[in-house]
Amino acid sequence: MSLKVGKQLKSLETVLLLGFFIITGALSVLSAQGRTRRYVWKVEKRYKSVDCFKKLVITINGSAPGPTIYAREGDTVIVEVINGLITENTAIHWHGIRQIGTPWSDGAEAVTQCPILPGEHFFYNFVVDRAGTFMYHAHYGMQSSDGLVGMIIVSVKPGFVEPFKYDHDRNILLTDWWHKSKSEQTTGLLSKPFTWVGEPQSLLIQGRGRYNCSLINDDTLCRNNNTDCSPYVLKVDPGKTYRLRVGSLTSLSALNFEIEGHNMTVVEADGHYVAPFLVSNLYIYSGETYSVLITANQDPSNKYWIATNVVSRPPNTDTGLAILNYRQQSSGSSPSTNPPIGPLWNDTAPRIRQSLKIKAHRDHIISPPKTSDQTIILLNTQNKIDGYIKWSINNVSYTLPQIPYLISLKKNVTDAFDQSPAPVSYDYQSYDIYSVQTNPNATSSSSIYRLEFNSTVDIILQNGNTLNPNNSETHPWHFHGHDFWVLGYGTGKYDPKTDLEKNSNLVDPIMKNTVPLHPYGWTAIRFIADNPGAWFFHCHIDPHLLMGMSVVFEQGIHRVGKLPSSIMSCVPRSD
Amino acid sequence: MSLKVGKQLKSLETVLLLGFFIITGALSVLSAQGRTRRYVWKVEKRYKSVDCFKKLVITINGSAPGPTIYAREGDTVIVEVINGLITENTAIHWHGIRQIGTPWSDGAEAVTQCPILPGEHFFYNFVVDRAGTFMYHAHYGMQSSDGLVGMIIVSVKPGFVEPFKYDHDRNILLTDWWHKSKSEQTTGLLSKPFTWVGEPQSLLIQGRGRYNCSLINDDTLCRNNNTDCSPYVLKVDPGKTYRLRVGSLTSLSALNFEIEGHNMTVVEADGHYVAPFLVSNLYIYSGETYSVLITANQDPSNKYWIATNVVSRPPNTDTGLAILNYRQQSSGSSPSTNPPIGPLWNDTAPRIRQSLKIKAHRDHIISPPKTSDQTIILLNTQNKIDGYIKWSINNVSYTLPQIPYLISLKKNVTDAFDQSPAPVSYDYQSYDIYSVQTNPNATSSSSIYRLEFNSTVDIILQNGNTLNPNNSETHPWHFHGHDFWVLGYGTGKYDPKTDLEKNSNLVDPIMKNTVPLHPYGWTAIRFIADNPGAWFFHCHIDPHLLMGMSVVFEQGIHRVGKLPSSIMSCVPRSD
Repeated sequence: MSLKVGKQLKSLETVLLLGFFIITGALSVLSAQGRTRRYVWKVEKRYKSVDCFKKLVITINGSAPGPTIYAREGDTVIVEVINGLITENTAIHWHGIRQIGTPWSDGAEAVTQCPILPGEHFFYNFVVDRAGTFMYHAHYGMQSSDGLVGMIIVSVKPGFVEPFKYDHDRNILLTDWWHKSKSEQTTGLLSKPFTWVGEPQSLLIQGRGRYNCSLINDDTLCRNNNTDCSPYVLKVDPGKTYRLRVGSLTSLSALNFEIEGHNMTVVEADGHYVAPFLVSNLYIYSGETYSVLITANQDPSNKYWIATNVVSRPPNTDTGLAILNYRQQSSGSSPSTNPPIGPLWNDTAPRIRQSLKIKAHRDHIISPPKTSDQTIILLNTQNKIDGYIKWSINNVSYTLPQIPYLISLKKNVTDAFDQSPAPVSYDYQSYDIYSVQTNPNATSSSSIYRLEFNSTVDIILQNGNTLNPNNSETHPWHFHGHDFWVLGYGTGKYDPKTDLEKNSNLVDPIMKNTVPLHPYGWTAIRFIADNPGAWFFHCHIDPHLLMGMSVVFEQGIHRVGKLPSSIMSCVPRSD
Repeated sequence: MSLKVGKQLKSLETVLLLGFFIITGALSVLSAQGRTRRYVWKVEKRYKSVDCFKKLVITINGSAPGPTIYAREGDTVIVEVINGLITENTAIHWHGIRQIGTPWSDGAEAVTQCPILPGEHFFYNFVVDRAGTFMYHAHYGMQSSDGLVGMIIVSVKPGFVEPFKYDHDRNILLTDWWHKSKSEQTTGLLSKPFTWVGEPQSLLIQGRGRYNCSLINDDTLCRNNNTDCSPYVLKVDPGKTYRLRVGSLTSLSALNFEIEGHNMTVVEADGHYVAPFLVSNLYIYSGETYSVLITANQDPSNKYWIATNVVSRPPNTDTGLAILNYRQQSSGSSPSTNPPIGPLWNDTAPRIRQSLKIKAHRDHIISPPKTSDQTIILLNTQNKIDGYIKWSINNVSYTLPQIPYLISLKKNVTDAFDQSPAPVSYDYQSYDIYSVQTNPNATSSSSIYRLEFNSTVDIILQNGNTLNPNNSETHPWHFHGHDFWVLGYGTGKYDPKTDLEKNSNLVDPIMKNTVPLHPYGWTAIRFIADNPGAWFFHCHIDPHLLMGMSVVFEQGIHRVGKLPSSIMSCVPRSD
């Protein structure tokens, strides 16, 4: 097993070297390694009626979701982002791309770069070093919930044989949608009294939803026959097998995804091959991607609903719908059946069962180190600071610094953020995860975790009760710059003495970049701190992130190459 | 007369010297010249119901309008602006303050500074070198129309006797108000098809208006008994005389202002003393300030409406109302009379008559040079570029450069904007100002006017027809960094051969910083290019400015001191 880790590290070094060549402009070397894919994206607000309700949407080249990036493993992707927002900045994160050698292209505002100013042309330049299904989205305030989202499909190198077969490849992006602007949502979340965003007005499949316009009764604002909101139709040929790459970039919602009458075989998760298993419902959390195979083996004279429903929160949103059509069918009508209503929203057990089922494909196991050098326990709680509602990790709610970490760390600016180490644990012996905290007051800090380069680190995500009695929420945690091994899940309080030994999988754990923390449960992950930079690790629920549910890890900062000056607009200048 | 010009220039040099001391940090010198007034302003979005309708408003320290700045002539004002907008930048212009020696504190984004980023602390530092009534407002996108506005009151030096007497001093700021956000308004204006902002939902007096909530019928959104929108009450003591400092920062509307039963004596305009004249209606355009004297000499047992109505555009907005109460009156009830409906909106004659009445007070005449070195004629027209509706000057619609002019000019960055000179005239012999242009297509450019330092320049603003037949609009033109002499107004096409001689006032012209251009008319102004820097000159109607109705003048750029690095966040950096 240690051999395999060694192999992985070796290939990492190759990519680091490749990164070096890119920086020094030796682009000719690249042609041997992969193609360069160039995109020019104008980011602008436009009026759209994606769920039939007309509102301002952040678009890329006029589209929301934005264009899908198609590349091949080893390719270089260059995206020129032109900020056409009039008074707003932006930043785009390439979700699942590890940015090896290019930590400044991660797009996490305040962590790896200053925001992109209106009128600015900013270049993201990175290598997609592994095949799989990835995504991108704004990583600035709550801009992604206004529509700046999209997918990245990285195909395998020529000659590489994937551990499953299919005839066609399709993408399906899932999002949730509000009629209030993110500016309104943000102000409510950061105000006293607190105003919650509420459940979404719609669930979107491929950027299209359907709000019931009769609730508004204003044709200028909402028309159900608007073509902007006509449902996505997946056309299939009878007998063929389809790889559906399903990604979720919801702002809030955990989802169930199903296709009426068609079982799905899960074969990929976050860019890693999964030991295949069959589901009729796929649970998917914000920040996750899955590839599922479906075979068009049902009665081709029928139509079938593709449906998504909210789970884990009391559902107050209509089912998100698209249509599966066999090729011969006309596009006009809907299936004759009632749309699926999804599984019980508050039944956690099948969701944990799915989490436990996701293991590495036997031919594609990357074995984790057998032991770790350090364990960090992160207690997830809802708290209060000066009467404002916050989310905290070990009772610390993060605040972002004015100068991005990558810059202040690399340039050794010591007054840019709180230099005291972030807490590595909580009082786990006496803490009652099933109760509202006796003293819910937290502190806020910009402190971070500084890791020894190449060390192996375990993270235990520990869930607890919110500020409401008998309530614990699902948090999908996303790591920038890394894939991690998912060692295990459990309910109740994680016991550091016994749980890792008893309840973890060191044989064939899946690697992911986003993992759910289930209500009142724990999730254990392991990673190697081998990617020089400063990396966000946070709950992928937008309001939770805004309310402080995040940490930052530094590793090997002195190995980071020269930072591009284009990331520094917010850094005070000396000239 | 040339003597007086000489005196003015001499005092200008003194202030320039003073500016130099500020820059070099010799603050002790200042104490002899004036006090330093320090302000710390947090700019944030909050929900407010300023006209009873709840919407997001940009506030300063929680207030919209922001706090009034009170200072004395010669004082230094330092405002630390903390941008608490989450994803938006900002910039604040000190309207009417000439920024002599501190052109980088003018607050005109893209002209004198880069925008202030979220989280940034930006310091505006300037001397208020002349007593009078001034204002401030956001100068970035259309942010001022979301509430970032306020007043600056500069009192005279001790011992200085103003040419009129009063017992009390009060401020009244007039604005217009929309329920759509500026982001929605902006997107509509810059889109194809064009979406006009429409007439305002309310007119606000001191930041308070009253929308008829029964039109919405949603208590959570609009309640007419909300205290946020209770009308401003001006309490007066019988027999006393009040100086009302009235300013307009409307986004669109030209206004009439009146106080039921009380005539007003106009005594100050834009910080200059006016030969007093009596009005019952005061016409006021966006960007203008006036001081009027009223005496509380009416029946103190009655209440009186303070009212503002839209003129110059078909009025579709209810009268903006406040209440004048004699001290003994309870505050609760409204006047028993019907609110004034204002003058006929489309009767231009009385508005031109008021313009012509505004002359310098005989004891405070600053005589203009008798001749000018250069005359620039600026034709104001509505145009099209690629099907987008624009406003143009001599058929050029301005576009703002990425690097602010002050910076690129001072640092001699020649590719930052169009270096060809902006056009100094139009084809005035054959152009028909009464018709829609035969070819309404315009070009866009970032070119500017570069003026010889200390030269005397005449500007002729020439109005024309819009894209609609038989329509010409009112444009209030505001000059940054300067007061100018208003030489005259006329109707029809300005004739350069005869009009200056026949129809201009070189004896006692008022100096102003904002002047109206009336429908189908012309306005002639004169100024001395004696303030080193780059200065905006533009229509003060927000949508018109956004649509390109502006020019920029450079003068004495090499005399500008070292630029503060804090204005340069949007300039590509070399480190």
